[in-house]
Amino acid sequence: MTIHLEGNDEQLRQAILAGDRGGLARGITLVESERADHQERAEKLVTALLPRTGQATRLGISGAPGVGKSTFVEAFGMHIVNAGHRVAVLAIDPSSRLSGGSILGDKTRMDELSRHPAAFVRPSAAGHTLGGVARRTREAILLCEAAGYNVVIVETVGVGQSEATVANMVDVFLLLIAPGGGDELQGIKRGIVELVDLIVVNKCDGDLLPAAGRIAADYQGALGLLRSLSVHWKPEVVQCSALEHRGIDQVWEAVGRCADTLRRTGDLADRRGRQLTDWLWQEVTGGIMDALRRDAKTGAVAKTLEQEVISQRLLPPAAARQVRESFFRRPERTEE
Amino acid sequence: MTIHLEGNDEQLRQAILAGDRGGLARGITLVESERADHQERAEKLVTALLPRTGQATRLGISGAPGVGKSTFVEAFGMHIVNAGHRVAVLAIDPSSRLSGGSILGDKTRMDELSRHPAAFVRPSAAGHTLGGVARRTREAILLCEAAGYNVVIVETVGVGQSEATVANMVDVFLLLIAPGGGDELQGIKRGIVELVDLIVVNKCDGDLLPAAGRIAADYQGALGLLRSLSVHWKPEVVQCSALEHRGIDQVWEAVGRCADTLRRTGDLADRRGRQLTDWLWQEVTGGIMDALRRDAKTGAVAKTLEQEVISQRLLPPAAARQVRESFFRRPERTEE
Repeated sequence: MTIHLEGNDEQLRQAILAGDRGGLARGITLVESERADHQERAEKLVTALLPRTGQATRLGISGAPGVGKSTFVEAFGMHIVNAGHRVAVLAIDPSSRLSGGSILGDKTRMDELSRHPAAFVRPSAAGHTLGGVARRTREAILLCEAAGYNVVIVETVGVGQSEATVANMVDVFLLLIAPGGGDELQGIKRGIVELVDLIVVNKCDGDLLPAAGRIAADYQGALGLLRSLSVHWKPEVVQCSALEHRGIDQVWEAVGRCADTLRRTGDLADRRGRQLTDWLWQEVTGGIMDALRRDAKTGAVAKTLEQEVISQRLLPPAAARQVRESFFRRPERTEE
Repeated sequence: MTIHLEGNDEQLRQAILAGDRGGLARGITLVESERADHQERAEKLVTALLPRTGQATRLGISGAPGVGKSTFVEAFGMHIVNAGHRVAVLAIDPSSRLSGGSILGDKTRMDELSRHPAAFVRPSAAGHTLGGVARRTREAILLCEAAGYNVVIVETVGVGQSEATVANMVDVFLLLIAPGGGDELQGIKRGIVELVDLIVVNKCDGDLLPAAGRIAADYQGALGLLRSLSVHWKPEVVQCSALEHRGIDQVWEAVGRCADTLRRTGDLADRRGRQLTDWLWQEVTGGIMDALRRDAKTGAVAKTLEQEVISQRLLPPAAARQVRESFFRRPERTEE
């Protein structure tokens, strides 16, 4: 299948392939736009670039507020570019969807990394749904790969389902933790530890050093109890201090070991294949459910039926049939 | 809304309301049938009985093979009927779906309880999908309630998603564990501990007594780390020996304390309301996706498109649109 892009979009495609940062930024803006004509153009653009994607190591980094995530990603990103790689950072901020504003509003974050010619840093725009954020981030990853970035970092604050969403679009998922946050095992509590390939204990410095050692041991113990995602890769705990630039190289080595293991054993191909089919079926279901929700008549019907169901006047399968019949505008055939 | 049942079904409704065990068994058989006309009659029957449901304590009991689940449920059920209650046990066996045969095939299980006039024991038929099993079990719970059983136990082997499915249809979810199963913290590994209200350590007897004490302490510690489902009820660990009939009364007391707490705080109404709306939307989505899967043309289209997506020739949103267009037999309008 060959995609022919029109004038400006063909130029955009070439700019992205040439590694032009402005072009990449414009491409991601197109992907993030909610205008129907933009979405159509974005899909054509990403499709045209598909053959040039897939070669990067896709790394998810998550952590609760206060673990020093920005400082870590800045130090980590600088380490990677100084090792000769090109790194793109996509920062997803689910809080901007919840609060209407962004808690990542600080413009100066990752200042040094942002200015480095081999780096590209992009905070996500606020999205209406996590599904929408997921689709746009997945497409942004592809654009970064087409632009020649061989490490793509997707960074997210640990809120709700955002971590599971990010884990399902990357090759390697890293959880950043730190002592002193009060509740030191919250990664385990939130069920997120089951998604991780690596746990990095940050703030292993100064007064926090003893506490950091304890928390690393606790997590190492917890990992022993939990199932791991791959039979070939056992999650590791690495200690570092982003502030003092210590241990960052060991984190990068661990990421490399994990990615190599997954690649060598075929787990990476399996993981990506599963992510792609998941994405496909999410879009099938999501698209149908979106159409259903946009249907004002069905929305009103469903709202009434929910109350009937909660008050035990109507059985959910019967209510569901009425919702579907309202949506399809016809009585359902009896199942064969 | 008044449901008028035809001849036999009206008799069936009255038999169930009169607490007739044969009638209840026939009602559940109707609910479990996959014949379209049976499903239609079953829905009418359950709907007609809806006003007489909801008063029971719904208890989910899960445990890995080898923890002594049948022995426990038998001893526990006998304790409950001897305390003057009427108890129904619905045993879901997800393995029968996976293997084509049942690993619960032993006809003699719960022999004493089965024969008690205040008890009703029913193994589930094999189902094709977990969603199908879930719907039928939810409807069977309602029939048991209409038949006057004030404790309904849904029992399941801990396989795959079956535990989460059961947890989402009961008031109180109990995990049964035992020492000597080799991997003694598997409940934590499988992420199931996050669903539980109570953990019961069985086989606290004989040679296993010291190991049972240790495993109880381990789980008590793990529960301290994990979030609990209700802010008002903190999960408890109870030790018992179903074989020696010790501690069974304490399990029953803990179930009562949990159910009372949830009822008093409004958490029970919230939990049931959420379960009902979840069930409604699962049926909406499930019904649409079933229709999509039954559509042979769309199935063939989807299979080809999955390969295109995995081999990076097609973007999932574009493939998903083609799947939807095949299903709806028309090009999609551009979103407004």
